[in-house]
Amino acid sequence: MSATTRFVLTLSCINRPGIVAAVATCLFAAGGDIREAQQFDDPETGKFFARIAFDLLDQNTVEALRFELSGIAARFGMAWRLNDHGAPRRVLLLVSKFDHCLVDLLYRWRIGELAMTPVAIVSNHGAEHFVEGEFGKIPFHHFPVTKETKAAQEQKIWALVQETGAELVVLARYMQVLSDDLAGKLAGSCINIHHSFLPGFKGAKPYHQAHGRGVKLIGATAHYVTAALDEGPIIEQDVERITHADTPEDLVRKGRDIERRVLARAVRYHLEDRVILNGGKTVVFTN
Amino acid sequence: MSATTRFVLTLSCINRPGIVAAVATCLFAAGGDIREAQQFDDPETGKFFARIAFDLLDQNTVEALRFELSGIAARFGMAWRLNDHGAPRRVLLLVSKFDHCLVDLLYRWRIGELAMTPVAIVSNHGAEHFVEGEFGKIPFHHFPVTKETKAAQEQKIWALVQETGAELVVLARYMQVLSDDLAGKLAGSCINIHHSFLPGFKGAKPYHQAHGRGVKLIGATAHYVTAALDEGPIIEQDVERITHADTPEDLVRKGRDIERRVLARAVRYHLEDRVILNGGKTVVFTN
Amino acid sequence: MSATTRFVLTLSCINRPGIVAAVATCLFAAGGDIREAQQFDDPETGKFFARIAFDLLDQNTVEALRFELSGIAARFGMAWRLNDHGAPRRVLLLVSKFDHCLVDLLYRWRIGELAMTPVAIVSNHGAEHFVEGEFGKIPFHHFPVTKETKAAQEQKIWALVQETGAELVVLARYMQVLSDDLAGKLAGSCINIHHSFLPGFKGAKPYHQAHGRGVKLIGATAHYVTAALDEGPIIEQDVERITHADTPEDLVRKGRDIERRVLARAVRYHLEDRVILNGGKTVVFTN
Amino acid sequence: MSATTRFVLTLSCINRPGIVAAVATCLFAAGGDIREAQQFDDPETGKFFARIAFDLLDQNTVEALRFELSGIAARFGMAWRLNDHGAPRRVLLLVSKFDHCLVDLLYRWRIGELAMTPVAIVSNHGAEHFVEGEFGKIPFHHFPVTKETKAAQEQKIWALVQETGAELVVLARYMQVLSDDLAGKLAGSCINIHHSFLPGFKGAKPYHQAHGRGVKLIGATAHYVTAALDEGPIIEQDVERITHADTPEDLVRKGRDIERRVLARAVRYHLEDRVILNGGKTVVFTN
Repeated sequence: MSATTRFVLTLSCINRPGIVAAVATCLFAAGGDIREAQQFDDPETGKFFARIAFDLLDQNTVEALRFELSGIAARFGMAWRLNDHGAPRRVLLLVSKFDHCLVDLLYRWRIGELAMTPVAIVSNHGAEHFVEGEFGKIPFHHFPVTKETKAAQEQKIWALVQETGAELVVLARYMQVLSDDLAGKLAGSCINIHHSFLPGFKGAKPYHQAHGRGVKLIGATAHYVTAALDEGPIIEQDVERITHADTPEDLVRKGRDIERRVLARAVRYHLEDRVILNGGKTVVFTN
Repeated sequence: MSATTRFVLTLSCINRPGIVAAVATCLFAAGGDIREAQQFDDPETGKFFARIAFDLLDQNTVEALRFELSGIAARFGMAWRLNDHGAPRRVLLLVSKFDHCLVDLLYRWRIGELAMTPVAIVSNHGAEHFVEGEFGKIPFHHFPVTKETKAAQEQKIWALVQETGAELVVLARYMQVLSDDLAGKLAGSCINIHHSFLPGFKGAKPYHQAHGRGVKLIGATAHYVTAALDEGPIIEQDVERITHADTPEDLVRKGRDIERRVLARAVRYHLEDRVILNGGKTVVFTN
Repeated sequence: MSATTRFVLTLSCINRPGIVAAVATCLFAAGGDIREAQQFDDPETGKFFARIAFDLLDQNTVEALRFELSGIAARFGMAWRLNDHGAPRRVLLLVSKFDHCLVDLLYRWRIGELAMTPVAIVSNHGAEHFVEGEFGKIPFHHFPVTKETKAAQEQKIWALVQETGAELVVLARYMQVLSDDLAGKLAGSCINIHHSFLPGFKGAKPYHQAHGRGVKLIGATAHYVTAALDEGPIIEQDVERITHADTPEDLVRKGRDIERRVLARAVRYHLEDRVILNGGKTVVFTN
Repeated sequence: MSATTRFVLTLSCINRPGIVAAVATCLFAAGGDIREAQQFDDPETGKFFARIAFDLLDQNTVEALRFELSGIAARFGMAWRLNDHGAPRRVLLLVSKFDHCLVDLLYRWRIGELAMTPVAIVSNHGAEHFVEGEFGKIPFHHFPVTKETKAAQEQKIWALVQETGAELVVLARYMQVLSDDLAGKLAGSCINIHHSFLPGFKGAKPYHQAHGRGVKLIGATAHYVTAALDEGPIIEQDVERITHADTPEDLVRKGRDIERRVLARAVRYHLEDRVILNGGKTVVFTN
């Protein structure tokens, strides 16, 4: 049996004439019907990026198409991925005490906004910090951490990633800095929400820093985790207006709203294959 | 002699597999190097829209390419345009008394932000309403209008469009309703700024209406002119936050800022071939 | 025993010289220390509105102050309220099937963002439409409704308002139009979220209307309920940018984010005595 | 002869009970009718700030009122100003080559949006860099500057401030760092537009820095000038959304729009006595 299925092809390579023609011809020959296509040519690096969503009448032909595409990819030196559109990815969620981002992601998942399967929730704080039953049937793991146990704790996280087959790790206000080792292992598949507008206020208590400086806007930044904390490729940012009358506590409150919507957008973009890394930056094909 | 030149191809047709492959192959064969490409498949109407910016090493080959494209266009039943990117279009500007949009457009033109050549300024009010020398060397025409003379006045506008070879008419706060006849002649090539957020407040004094209703945001709408005033395809909209403390005069002041930036964006999108009509709506390929 | 306590005084009356002097002198004499004060003089209606937050060292003096204020109120013909700042109000929450606003309000309550006590949740749909345990220990009532049973169902709602002592009713995506009778009983103490930017798209499926019209921004409106549906005094509005590529479903998704943040802001403003009715409009003293 | 005139009183002092009562009683006794009043109590510094706009039926009584207020000010240790609302201030405008902020301010002045009298325009570049007649009858001064002549050039600027009686100096994209000496002389009366979102990108070419970092929003900051460049008290900020597809040139273009509206707002707030300094921050009583 066969039915129309949508796939998403993302690719990047050094730009040269003929890429679009080759790929489009290949998809056409395979019976693919292109539904969305976006591309970007970076004039600085000379790199080409594309995201193409297409329907296949007979999904059994996808392996043949994959073979054809691998030939084109070899010819152009492409990095590429071909995914089922809407197939849920396995996601591991890390949190410390503040659960507004986590609760928001889980709600969006529950109503079908995010194509993911939460495989586990990990916190460095115990279950008693969270509302009973809040996480439903998702396994919860308490992995406490101290300076001394950090390496061992990260080992447990990494083991859990492998056991659960997690394809994405989301730091939903997880207030621990990942080691360079773990950050490296998760490169390109770990999203953090930085509770401030980067590069404005790095370090601890950014909203208090912002208040002290008297800025008129505060923001949040979602980015891929890299070895250098808070400095990974930015996926999404947003801000809200504040005034002199806002206390640091008001900023923290407004910040929660910005953080959860920025993180949710970034996770959705990732799950829908809308983000491609471009060195220390990202290409984000939003809709 | 030849040098790299950028062209913009826009096209629309009923969607079916193979369009992208055909066009991309054609451009590749002609030596075209695609720099930007955006497409949209409207699931409601089944129509396909695309904007492709590409470089040609030898601009003398463009006529041959045009011939090839016309063949593809015939095959797929495409509406299409192929324009030099950045070549200035001839623009006729209409204004009544409030000149904030006009002054803004002229400033942007002067510093190179808008690829246009203002061929004339027309007002139904006399030159004495404007600051002397404000329009530089652009011909200014005073075409007064009354109910009785409306047909004749529009005849003069239309004659001016033809004489000047204007490709675009911008109603930069021109407070006269165009007749169905003139609106029809200018279909798809006349942009109006409606000083309100449509469909919120139609009719006269929209900011006063908004004030009376106690809304918390006001906006402006740039749209193509059609026979049904204020109801043409929307190109761009924006809003600003207001409070109970804003008087109608404050709203008019804030409105000026919204109007001029919304109109300027819409005009830029048009001049860069970023807007394609889709029935009563638009497809806008922004950057 | 006594300790510093914060109170909020709100007042409105026909404006005439001396109001601020009288009130400020009275508060000073009572040992009140003004911490926040905002006022608005409506030049159209000649009405004066103020919100004053002040600390009392000895909260036992509040009754004496109340007596003094009632004298001033009589002199100036003031409507006024004096409330403990931060004292939770009893709130009844109504919902139909979509629970994103409800879940959001409850989360904000749980983490201390909203000074309220949810006394009951009422839905015209059964508990099986919601996630088990989602509402914790808050009583849930299923009050089904048909055209024939509407009067009786509203009678049950009104009885519940009285039993629970609810001071505020929030329609958190409750998709039933209240009768003029119930709307009248709840005047000034019932907040609705209209899932569209008013006055843009009234009626059913506003996001589909917006999509059909091709607008570039969508929004939501929180307002007090009055007899004329969707036309009560507006408390808060917000918008998000959309494009031609957004489907009606995308608009519904984006709409959820706007709706919940607009409703949450409006409820917070109400709970903190920041909203005063001004005829068919509101005065909102935000922070 | 007498007629209703509006005045604006701004004041700041260490907070203690009775300030509002004393001031309001004084204004009432003088026949003042309060039209707008905003106050802020800074819980961190314990300072009190207020802006009160009031009408006087007989403007001849203002000197008597001034005398009474000076008594209250002495009692509470207040810094205060009492200004005619809407009386134009003398403003000196400095610019380098990019004139978008300057042209915008002059347009707003011309149509009555800004209550100012531009007394002179100074540039470190010659008149030939600007459009002939652009500045109308406002005197233009070319004060070239090099490292060696900087002190002398600033001496000329300061002399011009004194000659013209300028009450405000606006750096409308004046790309020279003022010396600590001149910045000190102009403390609290010199507004700069920093063409970036502070504290994000200080230093040269901030839009290129932002592009290199891959941020998703860019902004601008208007602030009072202090000895430490780009670090003075912030008056206003705003941002716009950007994408990976925006070139540094696109950012510069979008930046122009943000810069001119942020600077215009800051200048208006200053001219309407809406800004009060609070150490290294500002209190801004917007409308």
